[in-house]
Amino acid sequence: MEEGRTMAQFGLVGSFTAQPGQRDALVALLLEAASLLETFPNCDLWFVSTAPDDPDAVWVTEVWRNQAAHAASLGDARVQEIIGRGRPLIAGFGTRITLEPIGGKGLS
Amino acid sequence: MEEGRTMAQFGLVGSFTAQPGQRDALVALLLEAASLLETFPNCDLWFVSTAPDDPDAVWVTEVWRNQAAHAASLGDARVQEIIGRGRPLIAGFGTRITLEPIGGKGLS
Repeated sequence: MEEGRTMAQFGLVGSFTAQPGQRDALVALLLEAASLLETFPNCDLWFVSTAPDDPDAVWVTEVWRNQAAHAASLGDARVQEIIGRGRPLIAGFGTRITLEPIGGKGLS
Repeated sequence: MEEGRTMAQFGLVGSFTAQPGQRDALVALLLEAASLLETFPNCDLWFVSTAPDDPDAVWVTEVWRNQAAHAASLGDARVQEIIGRGRPLIAGFGTRITLEPIGGKGLS
């Protein structure tokens, strides 16, 4: 935790189930989202993972400066365009864990 | 994902339940662990969170260069010393999610 930072970061760990055969397309789209988010200064971390035990699962791990920054991002037209392209690739939503990130290695 | 990197990063998202009243002590100890891990080049990300809905929960989100690097860290004497101090603060272990991180913002 940096000095001068309030303890209000907002974290999410969530999973999607891709439509059969669409996992890699969903991963590619989410990596495109991550590239867009490089330009969002209030997005501290946003990475994509697959799972060793589920060939259809895709996970996103996110840390935002605060919950409002995350909510605002969902209203961004470029984010909405990516969400629109993602929807047909997604069969369902799985785990969703909300975190209050405090500090550590790699957390800006 | 950087060029020249094989897709073998290893991720973990796991939770602890602290003994009653010991959450903040456990968080402080885990932040000490994170400071130690700043010196581990194969540890890419290791941060500590609390949870908005559980006053005893502490979460650790980790990304390592590969699974072997994570396993090796557990044999480090300094890591073991911290684990030894953490054990009396922990009532139990909760969620443990294994990830195959692929890329994104903030993932070295």
